[in-house]
Amino acid sequence: MRIRDLGFTPGILPPGDTNSIIDISGVGVGHATIADGEVQSGVTALLPHRGNLFREKVPAAVHVINGFGKSAGLMQIAELGSIETPILLTNTFGVGTASQALIRMMLRDNPEIGRTTGSVNPVVCECFDGYLNDIRSFPVKEEHCFEALRRAAEDAGPPEEGAVGAGRGMSCYELKGGIGTSSRRLCCGAASYTLASLVLTNFGKLEELVVCGRMLGREISGSGVLSPGGGQDHGGSVIVILATDAPLLPRQLGRLARRAVAGLSRTGSIIAGGSGELVIAFSTARRIEHFPSRDVHSMSMLDETLLDVLFAGAVESVEESVLNSLAAAVSVRGMDDHVRHSLAELMAEGKLN
Amino acid sequence: MRIRDLGFTPGILPPGDTNSIIDISGVGVGHATIADGEVQSGVTALLPHRGNLFREKVPAAVHVINGFGKSAGLMQIAELGSIETPILLTNTFGVGTASQALIRMMLRDNPEIGRTTGSVNPVVCECFDGYLNDIRSFPVKEEHCFEALRRAAEDAGPPEEGAVGAGRGMSCYELKGGIGTSSRRLCCGAASYTLASLVLTNFGKLEELVVCGRMLGREISGSGVLSPGGGQDHGGSVIVILATDAPLLPRQLGRLARRAVAGLSRTGSIIAGGSGELVIAFSTARRIEHFPSRDVHSMSMLDETLLDVLFAGAVESVEESVLNSLAAAVSVRGMDDHVRHSLAELMAEGKLN
Amino acid sequence: MRIRDLGFTPGILPPGDTNSIIDISGVGVGHATIADGEVQSGVTALLPHRGNLFREKVPAAVHVINGFGKSAGLMQIAELGSIETPILLTNTFGVGTASQALIRMMLRDNPEIGRTTGSVNPVVCECFDGYLNDIRSFPVKEEHCFEALRRAAEDAGPPEEGAVGAGRGMSCYELKGGIGTSSRRLCCGAASYTLASLVLTNFGKLEELVVCGRMLGREISGSGVLSPGGGQDHGGSVIVILATDAPLLPRQLGRLARRAVAGLSRTGSIIAGGSGELVIAFSTARRIEHFPSRDVHSMSMLDETLLDVLFAGAVESVEESVLNSLAAAVSVRGMDDHVRHSLAELMAEGKLN
Amino acid sequence: MRIRDLGFTPGILPPGDTNSIIDISGVGVGHATIADGEVQSGVTALLPHRGNLFREKVPAAVHVINGFGKSAGLMQIAELGSIETPILLTNTFGVGTASQALIRMMLRDNPEIGRTTGSVNPVVCECFDGYLNDIRSFPVKEEHCFEALRRAAEDAGPPEEGAVGAGRGMSCYELKGGIGTSSRRLCCGAASYTLASLVLTNFGKLEELVVCGRMLGREISGSGVLSPGGGQDHGGSVIVILATDAPLLPRQLGRLARRAVAGLSRTGSIIAGGSGELVIAFSTARRIEHFPSRDVHSMSMLDETLLDVLFAGAVESVEESVLNSLAAAVSVRGMDDHVRHSLAELMAEGKLN
Repeated sequence: MRIRDLGFTPGILPPGDTNSIIDISGVGVGHATIADGEVQSGVTALLPHRGNLFREKVPAAVHVINGFGKSAGLMQIAELGSIETPILLTNTFGVGTASQALIRMMLRDNPEIGRTTGSVNPVVCECFDGYLNDIRSFPVKEEHCFEALRRAAEDAGPPEEGAVGAGRGMSCYELKGGIGTSSRRLCCGAASYTLASLVLTNFGKLEELVVCGRMLGREISGSGVLSPGGGQDHGGSVIVILATDAPLLPRQLGRLARRAVAGLSRTGSIIAGGSGELVIAFSTARRIEHFPSRDVHSMSMLDETLLDVLFAGAVESVEESVLNSLAAAVSVRGMDDHVRHSLAELMAEGKLN
Repeated sequence: MRIRDLGFTPGILPPGDTNSIIDISGVGVGHATIADGEVQSGVTALLPHRGNLFREKVPAAVHVINGFGKSAGLMQIAELGSIETPILLTNTFGVGTASQALIRMMLRDNPEIGRTTGSVNPVVCECFDGYLNDIRSFPVKEEHCFEALRRAAEDAGPPEEGAVGAGRGMSCYELKGGIGTSSRRLCCGAASYTLASLVLTNFGKLEELVVCGRMLGREISGSGVLSPGGGQDHGGSVIVILATDAPLLPRQLGRLARRAVAGLSRTGSIIAGGSGELVIAFSTARRIEHFPSRDVHSMSMLDETLLDVLFAGAVESVEESVLNSLAAAVSVRGMDDHVRHSLAELMAEGKLN
Repeated sequence: MRIRDLGFTPGILPPGDTNSIIDISGVGVGHATIADGEVQSGVTALLPHRGNLFREKVPAAVHVINGFGKSAGLMQIAELGSIETPILLTNTFGVGTASQALIRMMLRDNPEIGRTTGSVNPVVCECFDGYLNDIRSFPVKEEHCFEALRRAAEDAGPPEEGAVGAGRGMSCYELKGGIGTSSRRLCCGAASYTLASLVLTNFGKLEELVVCGRMLGREISGSGVLSPGGGQDHGGSVIVILATDAPLLPRQLGRLARRAVAGLSRTGSIIAGGSGELVIAFSTARRIEHFPSRDVHSMSMLDETLLDVLFAGAVESVEESVLNSLAAAVSVRGMDDHVRHSLAELMAEGKLN
Repeated sequence: MRIRDLGFTPGILPPGDTNSIIDISGVGVGHATIADGEVQSGVTALLPHRGNLFREKVPAAVHVINGFGKSAGLMQIAELGSIETPILLTNTFGVGTASQALIRMMLRDNPEIGRTTGSVNPVVCECFDGYLNDIRSFPVKEEHCFEALRRAAEDAGPPEEGAVGAGRGMSCYELKGGIGTSSRRLCCGAASYTLASLVLTNFGKLEELVVCGRMLGREISGSGVLSPGGGQDHGGSVIVILATDAPLLPRQLGRLARRAVAGLSRTGSIIAGGSGELVIAFSTARRIEHFPSRDVHSMSMLDETLLDVLFAGAVESVEESVLNSLAAAVSVRGMDDHVRHSLAELMAEGKLN
């Protein structure tokens, strides 16, 4: 179930073929889901491309909307404008484990790391799933990371959404959230490009939720279907990953990343103080060699005046990704009998007209 | 005419007494409007308080949403966390003149500046009003700055909104924009505070405009009432000033400033590439002495966990300020017979239901 | 052996009692050193105070000089202006393990984390010790972290310097580097404060080394005592921790942190592109309650005009800390028979006059 | 007189032909000096190239070392990565006038600005010369700006240094400072590039001055030649402009700009709190069209691993530029009979050996 299946159409720009981040050629996504009573968590892996990312990095940028978070690897992306590992998403206390797993995989594939060349920068982003998940038990192991990575490399179809992978234990607007994705097909001068996003949603209060201009959160709480509370008071978050095949420099990717917040806002976010919110943007149009074959690289760059359609695409895509994370999520019962309800199930029950 | 008079109620938090930035005690706003055929421009002055701002600075912060702009004085606010002059708003080519005017006034009131103490940091923000205004003729003179400053010091009531002062020549969502303001009354722990904003709006495409969830821009263009175009393609912008009487440190004011973008987004903004967007936030709860009476200052600070209600207030207040800038603006005809239409007039004509 | 024992006196301000970071009351430092043939690595723990850091955080700031690095926890320090765990220093591939260890310790001491309150932000900084250390073997285990943390809590004297703890495998100016520390006693208005630093040095080329104005690096390479090379070409780094008992706000601590680079520069650094360099600064003058006892806090803040003496102290203290890391380090032979020589030993051999 | 004429050789890399910023082909520098009793001030203009800068911008970046300053135009350089006007340097209260002058010149040369295209971003940097100059009298007029701009376009030789142009009233280490410049010739892979800097110096205390490792400031004050004091207590500053013909992206220019601080530090700077210090870096290797001839640009970029030699060049060049500003400056007597002495004259008098 996706938000369009529920009758909503976010934005006006056309989606890509699958309306997901795999519309960016080469991108792969894989989940490892841990769902066992009190433990509801997982790992999601995203590959910017399926080659050797250390030797062929992708241009990238980071934007921190609200720095209340524990993600790893952002500083170096900002400095060097590149990503050199897959991106892992997981729960807050799994960041160290996921970093170790990423390093281990990179060492395996690149014997020169730590020997004849320097180190490697693992990128791991997190949200806090402690409402549904027994996060203190450290359920995320390196094997979950490897599983998610393997699936990201192998799976061909669009990523599963909702209560899967890193999204398993996450809450969004006090409903069940998790993983969502979307894409836009953009005419940009004489060319056309694709812009896509994948989000891990874990933020917001029920009454704030807006779906395509409709104050659905207030309707839900007003209808008595669901009572608000059970708080994201501490430790909400949202991770946004933007990908495009347009030839953007890191500085331009940074500008793109700074537009994601408008997509979040359209769903009702006030960027709560305890909600760590950050954006990573990368382009697949060019690869940056770790062992450069020449001193001066020739590269292509989209003219600055043509960025607006990408910005509009980012806003729409992020909005729809958040809504898809809600639409796709099944209800989940976890730790201490905490429950997060599925938006689609609430709507299917007809209690909302 | 304000947005609530048009039947819309942005947000859920209660406004302050005047639903304007003067709900923050001490704040003054004054306009000097230049409206003469091809010349449609002006200056708006905002006083954080009516005392000697150089000797008694206010804590402040800046957030740059999109740095395509020419405002002055931001770097030092970011470094020192304080504002030491009134804030002037004007058109892009008036920044130099307005800076000079501010310095001149500060020198007059503070004979020690440039002699026994250092210099002074004039704060001037701008938008580009070249669609309606013959900006190349440099219509803004120092006398307009002094007039706006004088009125800001003397006027008691809530500020005029719309096509006045710096807002005279500005366009918002291809309608007539300009100055807007709003406030929120906030319960915050055991205390209550006020949060208010004043905006200078000059951004957006008609079809993007959203009013309280209603896609009004598309309705207007769809109705044939107004044809889109005549663009903010180059040089849109929006300036947001946030004021509060809550005891916030500069770092906390920075967090507050970073929430303003969510208010802009609620009205439809995608943060276009050519739209210089920035936010200044200040608190009136404390003053910072230029000539300190002691080495160590005792100060009060709101607990970090209580900021969310201020964040929500900022988002709502900014949204309503933008909408007020539209609701209050009269239609203006300016350079080359360019016209920007008044939203209120369009709605009054009944062409929108 | 310290740099003053070698006849050099960096700067003009007087050091504190132990000329180390424990001159800041409450600060504790502990090392766990791993030295076994091919494995030369370790962990250093620094406690801002010896109480419950989660419940009583310290004001803090971060400055990234060069973001080519993989440290953890910086984003949240920047956002919230506080540190809530001990700081661990270790090698690049140990960051994940050290983060896990810190979280584990914090969970043990704070049963509410991840249950009734949110998560916790582990702070772990790193340099790459792969020249002397078999970093691919992941020698750093959680037990090393716990050992360093235990010693930091228990040990009373000034910290060991040189090839110890996280510094075991580090190189500085192609000599043996590692841990160094220093302090300054500062008159600041009517009061006096202490400013201290602890560094983990792993940067620079031999020929760049300057000791109190003397081009010692060129002397060494010119004398034939040591041939340059064996590079920090990939993955140098330096971590600087500044501590003070002066009542500084996070914004002021940020200003302080931005002065550390001048201390590094005095020793010859050009801030090489592959050298991840960052600074954390904290103040012990105030604690920030996790569970606030009131809504509005009363706090003290040093007047902005009095910071220069702290800035000068930071520059001198960092310079001397770097030099102490060199002076104290013994020669170390590690992986692949790589050797880094001790500056003190070189000077003692009389080959330098 | 330059610092090498006084017997000092900063750094080890070879200078370019003129050891000045005009070693970067196309760069022009011109001064307008105002020296009349109480008034000692001026304007310096720097042209990144001598074509139409608005239509052919240069890639650029900004780094703020200490944001206590009032320079104009930096925010947009940071956002868009380009400079589209000459750079003017002048005194603090002349920024508004210089901005107006720049806009006026740009409007004259580009009739489309403010009409069919957007606005223009004037870049003006400043230091406070109020110790020698009657800054409250606003001596800098637009005509001085035009004169400096004209000379920058016409003059062919290396720029005059010392007490000229914007440097006329500036003090450095309590000696006479002002304008200085230097360059380095760099082998970088198979190619060679030039890196140069021009500085406006107005910072530091006498006792801090270090010249190539020699504590010359303390020698001077110790010798009784000059008594310290007469302070840069309020409002010191230094502006650094870096130029290179190497093909660097704005992000890389930002990295370059962040190295300038090491050059300042080598001369003794502690980055005093009241000293506004900032760096602008640009590359002449590529031009960015305002009216793009294509949607996607092909461009060249130096490999990231080759930046270190540029970084070293920036550090040395900035160090030597500061020292040249001292070496070249004649003694100046200005307001209230304040005097700043020439370093070269002090050394020529033989009072320093």
